[in-house]
Amino acid sequence: MSVSTDPEPDVDVEENRPPEEAADPGPELSTLVAAEDAEGCTRWLEGTQAAETVRVLSRLTSDDRELLLELLEPADAADALESMPEPQAIEAMEGIEPATAARILEELPSDEAADFIGDLDAEDAEKILHELNAEEADSVRRLAAYEDDVAGGLMATEFLMYSPTDSLGHVFTDLSAQAEEDVDIDIQHTYVVDDDGRLLGVLPLRDMLLAPRGRVVSKLMIPVTLTIADDATVPDIAAVFRDASIISVPVVDRELRLVGVLDREAVEHQLHDEADEAYRASQGIVGGEELRTMPVVFRAKRRLAWLSTNVVLNVLAASIIAAHQDILQEVIALAVFLPIISDMSGCSGNQAVAVSMREMALGVARPADAFSVLLKELAVGVINGIALGLLIFLVATLWKGNAYLGLVVGGALALNTLVAVAIGGTVPLLLKRFGMDPALASGPVLTTLTDMCGFLLVLGSASVLIDKLV
Amino acid sequence: MSVSTDPEPDVDVEENRPPEEAADPGPELSTLVAAEDAEGCTRWLEGTQAAETVRVLSRLTSDDRELLLELLEPADAADALESMPEPQAIEAMEGIEPATAARILEELPSDEAADFIGDLDAEDAEKILHELNAEEADSVRRLAAYEDDVAGGLMATEFLMYSPTDSLGHVFTDLSAQAEEDVDIDIQHTYVVDDDGRLLGVLPLRDMLLAPRGRVVSKLMIPVTLTIADDATVPDIAAVFRDASIISVPVVDRELRLVGVLDREAVEHQLHDEADEAYRASQGIVGGEELRTMPVVFRAKRRLAWLSTNVVLNVLAASIIAAHQDILQEVIALAVFLPIISDMSGCSGNQAVAVSMREMALGVARPADAFSVLLKELAVGVINGIALGLLIFLVATLWKGNAYLGLVVGGALALNTLVAVAIGGTVPLLLKRFGMDPALASGPVLTTLTDMCGFLLVLGSASVLIDKLV
Repeated sequence: MSVSTDPEPDVDVEENRPPEEAADPGPELSTLVAAEDAEGCTRWLEGTQAAETVRVLSRLTSDDRELLLELLEPADAADALESMPEPQAIEAMEGIEPATAARILEELPSDEAADFIGDLDAEDAEKILHELNAEEADSVRRLAAYEDDVAGGLMATEFLMYSPTDSLGHVFTDLSAQAEEDVDIDIQHTYVVDDDGRLLGVLPLRDMLLAPRGRVVSKLMIPVTLTIADDATVPDIAAVFRDASIISVPVVDRELRLVGVLDREAVEHQLHDEADEAYRASQGIVGGEELRTMPVVFRAKRRLAWLSTNVVLNVLAASIIAAHQDILQEVIALAVFLPIISDMSGCSGNQAVAVSMREMALGVARPADAFSVLLKELAVGVINGIALGLLIFLVATLWKGNAYLGLVVGGALALNTLVAVAIGGTVPLLLKRFGMDPALASGPVLTTLTDMCGFLLVLGSASVLIDKLV
Repeated sequence: MSVSTDPEPDVDVEENRPPEEAADPGPELSTLVAAEDAEGCTRWLEGTQAAETVRVLSRLTSDDRELLLELLEPADAADALESMPEPQAIEAMEGIEPATAARILEELPSDEAADFIGDLDAEDAEKILHELNAEEADSVRRLAAYEDDVAGGLMATEFLMYSPTDSLGHVFTDLSAQAEEDVDIDIQHTYVVDDDGRLLGVLPLRDMLLAPRGRVVSKLMIPVTLTIADDATVPDIAAVFRDASIISVPVVDRELRLVGVLDREAVEHQLHDEADEAYRASQGIVGGEELRTMPVVFRAKRRLAWLSTNVVLNVLAASIIAAHQDILQEVIALAVFLPIISDMSGCSGNQAVAVSMREMALGVARPADAFSVLLKELAVGVINGIALGLLIFLVATLWKGNAYLGLVVGGALALNTLVAVAIGGTVPLLLKRFGMDPALASGPVLTTLTDMCGFLLVLGSASVLIDKLV
């Protein structure tokens, strides 16, 4: 276990700071960077709470972040890099000398190093790989070739491999040697492989501790019965970890050779990232995260890409109203209810979207279940449609003293709630089947369809009942 | 490391199933449960892929899920329980005999057992605690007393404690004894405490392996410099783990006594849950997750609670339109644009909400930063407001051949985009400051305010320019 070098136990990370520190915050990081005070920067990073570090680093200028990475020792620079929001960390790594970047990369866990290389501009990545030793570059290249969201892209390559004929004494000698070299190996992951690298078994740590050192590895190892293919995807991996109470699983390639170890933590981290991304996509932040320290024009352009699609869809939906202006002209009160019906249908539909997204993530619902999902949603839609429709019926009837107006808008909302939950429940499943991102596309598809349908229901039924409304 | 008992390496979890299995799926789980075939159920669970297990368990009837837990051995029942979606798992634990539930609970990691007890109905929880042995019940009770989202609620109590005067030989003897009792202890977490239970240091695993067995613990231990208070909250904990490349941190109480160990994995898992919950809340699924296997009336009622608040807010916003019916009557074309302006402002505002939520989660933005966030959002709002306003100006002008109509709706959208990003960016920070859930409340607050403002802008400017519009 590695421990940080805080001088005092960090009893409460934010509140219980020692009073003297509050009294003298010392020089600011930006000042230290400007003065190129490497030692000062290191001390600042060591003495500063984690949350504050993230905040201050994210607010440095791009140039200062690069200068900081160049000033620090590689191991400290790697820590600083991990404290930066991802887009800033990538930008900084692209900005510094490739040789410096390579030294920092060597201090990162293998999967994170590979993720960085994968995220960098291809040319910058090549330059940095060139500065790594051949073995390391090869390993990073191999890892970076995997997609980010398959087992190969999430696994670590820090594990130990021994032959079944090795003695436990040999294992311990090797461990000592590695300890002296200060190689960052997780001793929990000690595997036994044959001459071709195919996985045979695992050495349980507790048994290693307790067995005599002359014992041969093959006598100690437990056969491995659960492995994951290097191209297995996150939902499948998550299901494996949910099912078995294990902390890690060996990853094998198509020839069943051991290529890495997948930790439960890496899987949880990936699930967290995906949940975050789904949330952002559903709110219209698409194409990676946005930080307010990024250039305004970049932020505006990326947001506009999403908004302009929505404008088109909105105009499309509003064309239904444009086609019925004569009705609206005669019963102007309807115009008050159109935005209500549009918004409420969107709300009902988005609830169904959220439940479908959750059930897909849990593995409880699959694209093929669209029909059974539809039935379950319609049941809820009937109840909520009646409840909401009744409410709007009352509002409209009492306001204008005309029950027919209530009937038109209440009836439209009731029916459109049914439409909205049906669309909201099934669209994510269908988008998924056709390989599109349901978190991103469900909202616009849903609101466009429910708007069109809602406007048609209100204006169509009004034209039938026009005599009673004017 | 515990391994599952799958007969074959699980090369690709979903696709590469051995063909014979596809040909003969065997009896269904529900049939086995109905026949009370305990052995058959155990075999089914062992032979079934994780994703499929989740799916099938979630689709059993409540009674069958309870019967299944009662049929299985406690360890297998605990595995099955962990494969169930949380609401179903809680329901099942409340439904079975307290004694059986207690045996199952003993097989779960301490933090999960405590979470269950915390989530159960108080009366059911008491009955189950009564069936645990005094020591275990006490430990679960202590853990369950913590909030779910502080270090104490996330930590595990499976760790090893030794005195500084113990010899390494004693440690190994103790480990053997524990191994024989099959106690589920993570040997990575071996700490040294004084007579009052105050944390002194940690025993590094690699050094334990390599040192002579006569060595005394105090000579081997490394002083612990990083601890977390048992009442530290998730953002602070996450920042600590982000900052330091550690896999676990000891948790101490106010007297600096060691009370548990917090794994990086538990933190990632909690962050994942929170991101999921934020996504659901933003889409209007509030008060816990919903599964479509839950009773229709329960689902409908819970969704309605959220929807009915929204109806009221929508009626409030629409009252602005109602107050300006005369203008609308004269320029009916405006009614076509009101839903567009309402929806587009909501989209722009929600993008700003998503960025603020992300920056708060990263620790980059805090409630006190509301003003600087406001400025950064206004910069984006000016660009996007002009772009979107221009688009709608063109649509309206070309449609009706009246540039004043374009000016009214385009100008209103431009200004309202500015309003929307200002509200969207700052409201999450302000809600957070006042202790409300920003994921839940930002959307409704945002859309109500932007609707009202947008309607006022359109109808107000139209009344000024009324001569040019008719």
